[in-house]
Amino acid sequence: MAHLINNDVFLAFSTYATIVILKMILMSFLTIYYRLTRKSFPNWEDTAVGNKNPEERKKLLQTNPDVERVRRCHQNDLENIIPFVVIGLLYALTGPDLSTALLHFRVFVGSRIIHTVAYVMALPQPSRGLAWMVGLLTTFSMAYRVLTTALQL
Amino acid sequence: MAHLINNDVFLAFSTYATIVILKMILMSFLTIYYRLTRKSFPNWEDTAVGNKNPEERKKLLQTNPDVERVRRCHQNDLENIIPFVVIGLLYALTGPDLSTALLHFRVFVGSRIIHTVAYVMALPQPSRGLAWMVGLLTTFSMAYRVLTTALQL
Amino acid sequence: MAHLINNDVFLAFSTYATIVILKMILMSFLTIYYRLTRKSFPNWEDTAVGNKNPEERKKLLQTNPDVERVRRCHQNDLENIIPFVVIGLLYALTGPDLSTALLHFRVFVGSRIIHTVAYVMALPQPSRGLAWMVGLLTTFSMAYRVLTTALQL
Repeated sequence: MAHLINNDVFLAFSTYATIVILKMILMSFLTIYYRLTRKSFPNWEDTAVGNKNPEERKKLLQTNPDVERVRRCHQNDLENIIPFVVIGLLYALTGPDLSTALLHFRVFVGSRIIHTVAYVMALPQPSRGLAWMVGLLTTFSMAYRVLTTALQL
Repeated sequence: MAHLINNDVFLAFSTYATIVILKMILMSFLTIYYRLTRKSFPNWEDTAVGNKNPEERKKLLQTNPDVERVRRCHQNDLENIIPFVVIGLLYALTGPDLSTALLHFRVFVGSRIIHTVAYVMALPQPSRGLAWMVGLLTTFSMAYRVLTTALQL
Repeated sequence: MAHLINNDVFLAFSTYATIVILKMILMSFLTIYYRLTRKSFPNWEDTAVGNKNPEERKKLLQTNPDVERVRRCHQNDLENIIPFVVIGLLYALTGPDLSTALLHFRVFVGSRIIHTVAYVMALPQPSRGLAWMVGLLTTFSMAYRVLTTALQL
């Protein structure tokens, strides 16, 4: 194990993977914030806080566009950040240059932060689309190196 | 590879990660169970089993609140268990004490089992919310150790 | 790190995990293709391309059954491919025979490709259900080996 922990690229991967996963978890808290302020809950038992009146509780079960927007952003994170983590881990083990690896990790994490801001604030396209594409290109570049290093069908 | 397999913390991580991933897969079977008993399917081709009448098949395409509840629970698993697995793997490689690591893994897995029971059985809040928060705190604690050990921006 | 990269089973895992994650990312592009051809978008800012008329933009916000189908297929990938990657990584570290490991990886990746074709083309059941089950059985078989090798509660 010592050599993983003494390996600069692996340490860099650990740092950026943890940061971007924490960013993804942040979406859960943002969803809760919007659910509370927009009064929109998915489950009957969630509507009981401070409410006894069944009629008022029913109103809290409606969907809200701001909540749905944050949830779509969270879903997009799942669809893009998890592939980055998996392929990034394998990429780190192929022994790339530290500077090349850092470039990949930083561009990806930066692109996802911009993507989140563009999604949650509903910035005009193509801001969100470009951020999404830059993140994917980073992942593809790492996947290319993994496949050319490891290819063993 | 031998030293990963001879490392107690890594073995403990492998055990608990596998258990909690299997728990997540269980949600797929629970969804199928509810789809069959509540007669609620998402795709036209799923409604053909034992049905030839197009009118009756159309009725099977409606959503059902019990099915949607299980699917929300599955989604919450994806949003929480995957971060645990990623950060837990990196955490196991930082060389923590076995007892500390076991505490993290056991609390997380326990919290997710309680979360699932609370969600599927619609137990009164804050049971589900607390279970969710305990699981996240475990993940945050491991992320803190990964970042303080590996931080390399 | 050298011994991971010199290990045949780990190289095979890296190859198949990367391929199946790339297949999962393909679903994002398929979603975009269906959104563009079916004119169905989730966000107001996505409807601005080539449209100035608010009435016409509103029409683009409706859901479309083909888009929803591809998104369900993507969701099923998240629910099944990620468990494969996690358990497959731990399985590769238990030191299985290369031929046994290759059999698991190939059957899983093949089953997911068939699953995607069956889902997107709406082939009659049980084609999609069987492909899904074969993939899961591969994952269960690997989980069994991980637990019998590593079990440390």
